[in-house]
Amino acid sequence: MIKQVLIGILCGAAVLTAGILIGHYGVTKSSAPSWVKDVAKDVDESLIERFLSEVDNIQIQENLRELTKVPHMATTAGDEQTVQLMLKRWQDPETGLDQAWREEYMVYLSFPDPKKPNKVTVVSPSDTVLYTARRKEKTYTSDEDDPEVVQPYAAYSPAGHPKGKLVYANQGKPSDYQRLNNTVDLRGTIAITRYGGAGRGAKAINAAPYGVIGVLVYTDPLDINDGLMSDINETFPHSWYMPPSGVERGSFNDKFGDMLTPYLAAKDETYRIPVENITGIPPIPIQPIGFEDAYALICKLGGKAAPEEWQGAFNCTYNVGGPGFQNSSAFSNSDVKLDIFNYEEKKNSSNVMGVIKGSVEPDRYVIYGNHRDSWVYGAIDPSSGTSVMLELTRVLGKMVKQGKWRPRRSIIFGSWGAEEFGLIGSAEYTEQYLTKLSHRTIAYINVDIAVFANATLRASGMPSLQNVIFKAAKQVDAPGLDSTSVYDNWIKYFNRTSQAHGFIPNVGYLSGAGSDYAAFVHYLGIPSMDISYTYDRSKTNARIYPAYHTAYDNFEYASKFIDPGFTSHQAIARTAGNVLIRLADSLLVPLNCSDYAETLEDYLNTAVTLYQHELQERNISMEPLKRAVASFRSAATHLDQVIRSSDLANETPLTVRRINDQLMLLDRAFLDPLAFPDKYAYRHVIWASSSAGKSTFPGLADAFANTESQSSAWDKVHYHLSVLSQAIEGAAHTLGDVI
Amino acid sequence: MIKQVLIGILCGAAVLTAGILIGHYGVTKSSAPSWVKDVAKDVDESLIERFLSEVDNIQIQENLRELTKVPHMATTAGDEQTVQLMLKRWQDPETGLDQAWREEYMVYLSFPDPKKPNKVTVVSPSDTVLYTARRKEKTYTSDEDDPEVVQPYAAYSPAGHPKGKLVYANQGKPSDYQRLNNTVDLRGTIAITRYGGAGRGAKAINAAPYGVIGVLVYTDPLDINDGLMSDINETFPHSWYMPPSGVERGSFNDKFGDMLTPYLAAKDETYRIPVENITGIPPIPIQPIGFEDAYALICKLGGKAAPEEWQGAFNCTYNVGGPGFQNSSAFSNSDVKLDIFNYEEKKNSSNVMGVIKGSVEPDRYVIYGNHRDSWVYGAIDPSSGTSVMLELTRVLGKMVKQGKWRPRRSIIFGSWGAEEFGLIGSAEYTEQYLTKLSHRTIAYINVDIAVFANATLRASGMPSLQNVIFKAAKQVDAPGLDSTSVYDNWIKYFNRTSQAHGFIPNVGYLSGAGSDYAAFVHYLGIPSMDISYTYDRSKTNARIYPAYHTAYDNFEYASKFIDPGFTSHQAIARTAGNVLIRLADSLLVPLNCSDYAETLEDYLNTAVTLYQHELQERNISMEPLKRAVASFRSAATHLDQVIRSSDLANETPLTVRRINDQLMLLDRAFLDPLAFPDKYAYRHVIWASSSAGKSTFPGLADAFANTESQSSAWDKVHYHLSVLSQAIEGAAHTLGDVI
Repeated sequence: MIKQVLIGILCGAAVLTAGILIGHYGVTKSSAPSWVKDVAKDVDESLIERFLSEVDNIQIQENLRELTKVPHMATTAGDEQTVQLMLKRWQDPETGLDQAWREEYMVYLSFPDPKKPNKVTVVSPSDTVLYTARRKEKTYTSDEDDPEVVQPYAAYSPAGHPKGKLVYANQGKPSDYQRLNNTVDLRGTIAITRYGGAGRGAKAINAAPYGVIGVLVYTDPLDINDGLMSDINETFPHSWYMPPSGVERGSFNDKFGDMLTPYLAAKDETYRIPVENITGIPPIPIQPIGFEDAYALICKLGGKAAPEEWQGAFNCTYNVGGPGFQNSSAFSNSDVKLDIFNYEEKKNSSNVMGVIKGSVEPDRYVIYGNHRDSWVYGAIDPSSGTSVMLELTRVLGKMVKQGKWRPRRSIIFGSWGAEEFGLIGSAEYTEQYLTKLSHRTIAYINVDIAVFANATLRASGMPSLQNVIFKAAKQVDAPGLDSTSVYDNWIKYFNRTSQAHGFIPNVGYLSGAGSDYAAFVHYLGIPSMDISYTYDRSKTNARIYPAYHTAYDNFEYASKFIDPGFTSHQAIARTAGNVLIRLADSLLVPLNCSDYAETLEDYLNTAVTLYQHELQERNISMEPLKRAVASFRSAATHLDQVIRSSDLANETPLTVRRINDQLMLLDRAFLDPLAFPDKYAYRHVIWASSSAGKSTFPGLADAFANTESQSSAWDKVHYHLSVLSQAIEGAAHTLGDVI
Repeated sequence: MIKQVLIGILCGAAVLTAGILIGHYGVTKSSAPSWVKDVAKDVDESLIERFLSEVDNIQIQENLRELTKVPHMATTAGDEQTVQLMLKRWQDPETGLDQAWREEYMVYLSFPDPKKPNKVTVVSPSDTVLYTARRKEKTYTSDEDDPEVVQPYAAYSPAGHPKGKLVYANQGKPSDYQRLNNTVDLRGTIAITRYGGAGRGAKAINAAPYGVIGVLVYTDPLDINDGLMSDINETFPHSWYMPPSGVERGSFNDKFGDMLTPYLAAKDETYRIPVENITGIPPIPIQPIGFEDAYALICKLGGKAAPEEWQGAFNCTYNVGGPGFQNSSAFSNSDVKLDIFNYEEKKNSSNVMGVIKGSVEPDRYVIYGNHRDSWVYGAIDPSSGTSVMLELTRVLGKMVKQGKWRPRRSIIFGSWGAEEFGLIGSAEYTEQYLTKLSHRTIAYINVDIAVFANATLRASGMPSLQNVIFKAAKQVDAPGLDSTSVYDNWIKYFNRTSQAHGFIPNVGYLSGAGSDYAAFVHYLGIPSMDISYTYDRSKTNARIYPAYHTAYDNFEYASKFIDPGFTSHQAIARTAGNVLIRLADSLLVPLNCSDYAETLEDYLNTAVTLYQHELQERNISMEPLKRAVASFRSAATHLDQVIRSSDLANETPLTVRRINDQLMLLDRAFLDPLAFPDKYAYRHVIWASSSAGKSTFPGLADAFANTESQSSAWDKVHYHLSVLSQAIEGAAHTLGDVI
């Protein structure tokens, strides 16, 4: 009986089990489609750990060595070599991207004539040449001897042969020439200026109205070398400081993108404006020289001592007056003559593009880019960034090729051409693909000069990106420090107190056009960031790393003086890559809108303090702007609450997408193509460049500054207030309940 | 034993069943989340049938009766009554929308002075008034006696008192004044013009350069009444024709939106341009009069017979010359004097907004709108459309309130204010909500005058909407015809042969700014359509229905002469509602990109025929444009293939969303805020207005036309070719593979 009962129980159990199995597997019910899991997948922290561990400093070093084998100025043979290198790496079957290709633009560049080198001479009244400035930088290593090293010149300076008395004009700011003009007749003079304080081209543009006919520019050892001058033991190759013959090259135009094809991608048959219609370039010849030559000229100048703040590091008094040289000097009564043979040419410049296609939302892009072209070897500018980018793509590419990873969103890598001539490659790219990039891009990450120095991280970007940068920086070890994160080190150098977050690292703003983020920020309104490792300011006052744009910015310089061991490069690769993966993989786009609100409130408070009183006197109300900022704050708070109270992984993917779209498109709402009629391609009302130098809404600050000179300008202040208020209200609508 | 076996089998079966049940319901497996079905839901055809059957002609008639009780010119008490009506209906708990509210803008309007009515007189040399034109239209029904009937005037005509010899200037086109000026000294004259051929304000703008000091405008019976003139038996109230005293009022400005706040929503504190900076309004006084008065003036004019094509329907010869009256006439040597007392005022105008919130994609909008304001009673313009909109919202609102339906996407209804003064309410709305509307709107449907006449459907819109209009029109019965669909009737009146579809109804283009679609099409690049029932052109040559903008456009007129029984209104409500539901509910957004390609190819072929030869002579290549159109076609074909080969209901919702975004954003890619620097708010390179009158790319046609007068204009042709090619390439990128 027991046996029968047991058999019965066993049979019953078997039948029940069969039933369960049939019920579970055999009876159709609406089982979840396979994509339900995919669409809800969030960023994988273990993958980030794996990424961080695989980023290799020696790989970066070897990337740099290869990139800096020869000079690679835009459109030269050396540039083409780097194009081929990028393509080879990105098309590598083991460690490459899904696809990589080249895109070309026919762009307007400016070069010195190798057959007729530019000349700066001191010429006596009897036309004897008393002094000739160096034509090329002094050779310390074989690198400087390469015939492909471009002679120092000012790109887009017109050719010409001005001759006149020399006068020292400090930094060539409008106020400098104005001050000088009070005591010196500048007509027919040659001005010598030092770098800093004003844009390169501005030094000539500001000079011309006073009748100045030519300009020299040099780097004062005060501004770049902490005062040091001697190449016997003080400057490169003994240290990172600029040798006396070092010359900062550069583009002397003040816009970005190809100058002949404003707002249009520079394809072969694209309409080009007449060359004479170009604005923002020097109207008179200008030439950069080394401080060795500047010393020989400035210390012989006549007149009275220049103001204290005009004095540099030379062991002589910088005089203003004359104009011209001291009578007691060897150059007495002599002129300075510039013989500039620069010429312009349309040339094909290449961007190299690569993509990793997104798995779930291929129509959402995270873009990562850097320019590829340099002035000479460009070890730091830009090849430090390119070496980092190549290491990033190697590690990510390998994971993709091995089938271990595919990002949720698509990643686009851009190796931009002709940045040094005015951010041309990136600007043309955004012009060509304006609509699809505008509609689909989550963020742009720019790593140009990856390492200026090895003290600390520096980051600039939209406030909405602050949070993801913090998160990434906390997960990366600071180079050269034990158990300190990049974040913990960073906060010691750059910090502020935030209402919402307390004591945090200070993320800067991208209000200028210093690198390829410009078109993304200003023209497209895409959340962007620029990150690098940089100086300990208690240790140097150098304007920038001293070999910047000289022939000395080579592999030896980078590996010996900037980042021996390449661990700062590694830290940047890890930090930027971590941010990149989070932007590409997070279920919720990691853009924080409340952090944006904080910036708007700061701007508003400053604006109220600076302007409200005078505006009230003219019956211009700031209330619409206050209401707009308040609407923005309230919409941001609300959206953050919605996000916090949602179980996003179990929401419909369209709900997550809706929120992500709100976050992605927030910055687009700040664009107004009519907000800055005088600023080429500036459309973002919060981040546009401003000459007023106030930490507030740029258009408002500039319009307000103009009221000092023109009384009719109050209309423009009121107009811009309305533009600004409407844009901020529009941004609030973007964040608010969608209907 | 049998019993035991039976019990055993029953027990076994019971256990098995229990197991199956447990297995099916009790054991967790990844079952589909509830939203999986929702996100894949497509339009429900039975719901459309239900909608069609519930649309009621008598309801529409009663809507119209209520809307036309009193005159409701923008910002008057009558306008406020219609605001209240809209709010009441849309907030009705049984048949209303989810939400409805009012939005106000402070806009710049122009009115006649009720205390100092405008006057047109004939004055003898001795200052005797020989003739005075009617100050108001003749009374046939009590309607015309309402004190709120605004006297005939030209909105935005300046006040003034010009007096001079009268001269007939045909339609006041540039060519008309030019021709006249060959034989007549126009300085100091008053021109009398007939409606048609040129915009209202243009008749004065074109005149002023010749020294004309005032303009009259009237409607010639030839153009509106098929020649008929007598109110004894021929015109209203005996027929639909305009009585002799009828006057077409109108706005005489040539832009859209509030004139003082270009590109900015006209809020109280918004910056306003100085009134003297307004352009596009008459520089000299202008006044509309009835043909009764025009007859008394024109038939007495001296000089020689005007050209044949200048002659109207009066039983006299229209003379040009003099200027002034025949010596033999009672007005010999007399002047015509205008006393215009119009004044401008900023007034609050209201839009009434209502929404039905979308269930699955609330962040995608379909917008349906019409203006609410009229010149007088506005039974046809615009209340026929508003009656239809109210019936639509009643039927849809009821389904929503009863819980029987909620659209996939959100629907926004707009009852725009101050359209008659220049599409102001809709334009301000788009300015205020620019970014969120740009980012989220699938389409805009405009039904202004729903029924011009009861012969056939007429539809205009982006070619991508053609398909959904066809689908809807096939499902609606044509009014007054047995078993004929609106589609089958339509194709008899408007048709063409398409390469892709063969013989089909012809959908027109929205290249002008004739109604509130203007800002949506031109400024925002939103796929838009405008539909109505209209004339049998074999039966009338009337420019427009004859009571247009007169006091006679009242309920009696509409119900007796335009659509007795309101079945054409019903057909429009059904057709527009069907389109609306499909746009809101279809899983795949019903926008067909290949149909857009067909239009671009037609435009290109025309452009090549018209321009290629001359362009080649100037070394301007059309190849970039040809390549762009070919790219567009190929991207469209490819996307259509992707759609056809996809099982969208089983795809991830993000894949469907991606395709829908491509279709939605296609038109945005055609926008370029810099494409038409001289055309306010025109940004769409395909649909902008054009004065060249060619069926091709408008900016290209206009630029080409300008080369006749300025040789430097070839640069502008080349420039616009590049703008256009880049925009079309951008549109192709939008449709192409997303990465």
